[in-house]
Amino acid sequence: MKFKVPRGTQDILPSESWKWQKLERMIHEVCDLYRYEEIRTPMFEQTELFQRTVGDTTDIVTKEMYTFKDRGDRSMTLRPEGTAPVVRSFVENKMFGWPDQPVKLYYIEPMFRYERQQAGRYRQFVQFGTEAIGSADPAIDAEVIALALDVYKRAGLKDIKLVLNSLGDQVSRAAHRDALVEHFKPSISEFCADCQSRLEKNPLRILDCKVDREHPLMKTAPSLTDYLNDESRAYFDKLQQLLTAAGISFELDPNLVRGLDYYNHTAFEIMSAAEGFGAITTLCGGGRYNGLAEEIGGPSAPGIGFGMSIERLLLALEAESAELENDDALDIYVVSLGEAAKDRAFEVLQTLRAAGIRADMDYMDRKMKAQMKSADRLRAKWVAVIGEEEVERNIVQLKNMAEGTQQSVSADELVKNILAAGN
Amino acid sequence: MKFKVPRGTQDILPSESWKWQKLERMIHEVCDLYRYEEIRTPMFEQTELFQRTVGDTTDIVTKEMYTFKDRGDRSMTLRPEGTAPVVRSFVENKMFGWPDQPVKLYYIEPMFRYERQQAGRYRQFVQFGTEAIGSADPAIDAEVIALALDVYKRAGLKDIKLVLNSLGDQVSRAAHRDALVEHFKPSISEFCADCQSRLEKNPLRILDCKVDREHPLMKTAPSLTDYLNDESRAYFDKLQQLLTAAGISFELDPNLVRGLDYYNHTAFEIMSAAEGFGAITTLCGGGRYNGLAEEIGGPSAPGIGFGMSIERLLLALEAESAELENDDALDIYVVSLGEAAKDRAFEVLQTLRAAGIRADMDYMDRKMKAQMKSADRLRAKWVAVIGEEEVERNIVQLKNMAEGTQQSVSADELVKNILAAGN
Repeated sequence: MKFKVPRGTQDILPSESWKWQKLERMIHEVCDLYRYEEIRTPMFEQTELFQRTVGDTTDIVTKEMYTFKDRGDRSMTLRPEGTAPVVRSFVENKMFGWPDQPVKLYYIEPMFRYERQQAGRYRQFVQFGTEAIGSADPAIDAEVIALALDVYKRAGLKDIKLVLNSLGDQVSRAAHRDALVEHFKPSISEFCADCQSRLEKNPLRILDCKVDREHPLMKTAPSLTDYLNDESRAYFDKLQQLLTAAGISFELDPNLVRGLDYYNHTAFEIMSAAEGFGAITTLCGGGRYNGLAEEIGGPSAPGIGFGMSIERLLLALEAESAELENDDALDIYVVSLGEAAKDRAFEVLQTLRAAGIRADMDYMDRKMKAQMKSADRLRAKWVAVIGEEEVERNIVQLKNMAEGTQQSVSADELVKNILAAGN
Repeated sequence: MKFKVPRGTQDILPSESWKWQKLERMIHEVCDLYRYEEIRTPMFEQTELFQRTVGDTTDIVTKEMYTFKDRGDRSMTLRPEGTAPVVRSFVENKMFGWPDQPVKLYYIEPMFRYERQQAGRYRQFVQFGTEAIGSADPAIDAEVIALALDVYKRAGLKDIKLVLNSLGDQVSRAAHRDALVEHFKPSISEFCADCQSRLEKNPLRILDCKVDREHPLMKTAPSLTDYLNDESRAYFDKLQQLLTAAGISFELDPNLVRGLDYYNHTAFEIMSAAEGFGAITTLCGGGRYNGLAEEIGGPSAPGIGFGMSIERLLLALEAESAELENDDALDIYVVSLGEAAKDRAFEVLQTLRAAGIRADMDYMDRKMKAQMKSADRLRAKWVAVIGEEEVERNIVQLKNMAEGTQQSVSADELVKNILAAGN
């Protein structure tokens, strides 16, 4: 009987997990600088929450959700994205009544989508996302975008670009929607079944169809940009002005629509332009979702957010050969010879650790040579050797591995010696 | 339409999430001191993995698992505990061949059990666990126990106690098993249906039945301790000796059996004895699981580990009134008056954040007074005020909130001023 990690998922082993820790620590720090506070929502939600918000004509909802009945016969879905659960929590916990609006939240959480397997796509992946809910100020859009870029910059990415679009407000979107229907309707029979059903339900979705992307009508489709009303245009202009003033460069792409139904006004993506990454690829996507809180039964609370996959961030770092620094070398390895020495080693180990010194020893009754090899592999800065004589005299032989020096030190002074040497 | 957090689960909001971050950071540090490395496994596994390892007569497997079919019609289960997935990964990734044995791993991950709702029990809870796999040395048992205690100590818990038992090796367990069957068989009809089916399949499970716990035969049941063979006894003695030498006190409890099938030799629990916690309650449970790797198709690789719930740790801290320190005060709040000032404020904000200063501003076009109130609530150490005149002269009015002083500072020198004051 062999058990395997479920298809499309992965184990993150120690050779990788330190990178995750490092990135997460950095993300917590950046969010703290911007005063975004962490929220954690459950791994699953009522299925209807996603049907209602993400949109029931989207690929996510129609093909990719992990949906199951719980033991109380309620339909639950492993969360495929982070915004709907956060907005659900915003409404349920009446955060609209909190004194400081907008409420600025972030999360670093696993998401689940049953997608076809390919490089950089996992069925369970971790998304860092922010949600600023309660303000319809273009400055908060600029802040959210700046935060995302800041995270990439601090991670060490250089080859990235920001792409912007405006989806306009409800009025602009309705006008555009009508134009789309008119544009596609005469030839809709040439499109895939999904697109045919999207035509009436949600024609905007046709534009990000993966099947029909080469159809000539795609290129000539009416652009949202031409249907923005004055308010929407003013909003978009202000955002661009703020970004420019803050030294953030961007490209405009009128075809950027994002694959979720709830976006309006600002939509943006951050892409890797690194050569090793192949085609230019989306690392982060986000946008404004005014109306989403109302959609799920809350009061009006305009919001904006983004989601970025940590897996893709790691791939982008690799593509740029930007390496994170691994600073997990051991401080000291305690080599012991014989049972009495091992018992003493364990005591010494606990004293060292209590003093904040990273310490390890042998638990396999191996010979001295093998223990020394472990010390090397673990890049121990110090090695303490304890044999029979050292037990009797209550000392250890302390080696400084970088300098190749050795001295006898009383067991009680071991900690002091190591701390004095700047650990 | 109202959406709610699924029953038995919770949102962790900003008023709590900083505590989680703090505890997790501390756990990463302690594990680093002991050279345990992080592993992350997927949120779900093949259902059979848990049936096989946790045991198909346990409550967890029979009543509490979140099991579902994925879109490929495979039976998957949201992980109810952390050991089986880690051992699965150990075998699958051939960690038994890694040069440094035992492999010392830890995780901080959500677990899922469909349990009846009660205080301190959630259907999704987060467990910190360690697994040291590849050594059958009592010193590693002692290390694992010391690590768990260290985490509680550093979190600030004082009223805790360690309870130990030995379940013996396979031979001892078989002898004890026979004695249990003989003990319960004549009166088994007085026990619940579950216990009746446990009698032949796994009589040890009868001892932790919640229904029949008051039955007189429970008290007189043969104790494992009396059936330990010499090897098992020597192992247990050595562990006690090592703990004592390291200054770790403990109680022995021959009835401690743990609710999972795979344990043998060492079993332990760490309990809160705090008054506010009500009855003495388990915070952490662990034990040795020699044979588990073989059970799932791997080579012989003896292991030991524990799991502790972060939710209960937080409850225990509360019960002891041991408070974590919240150090998330804002460094500076930028108050702006008028649109030009707000644009400038956003630029200033980005400069401050780039310098590592925690900064925020108003995104609601509120009056000065309301903005000052926000600064107070967020415990801002500094407030920078920007009005029309400040925009023109490229300055800000900088207030030191603790000292009540104010000065005009050029926008370019704002960062320098704040950093110079040790922010």
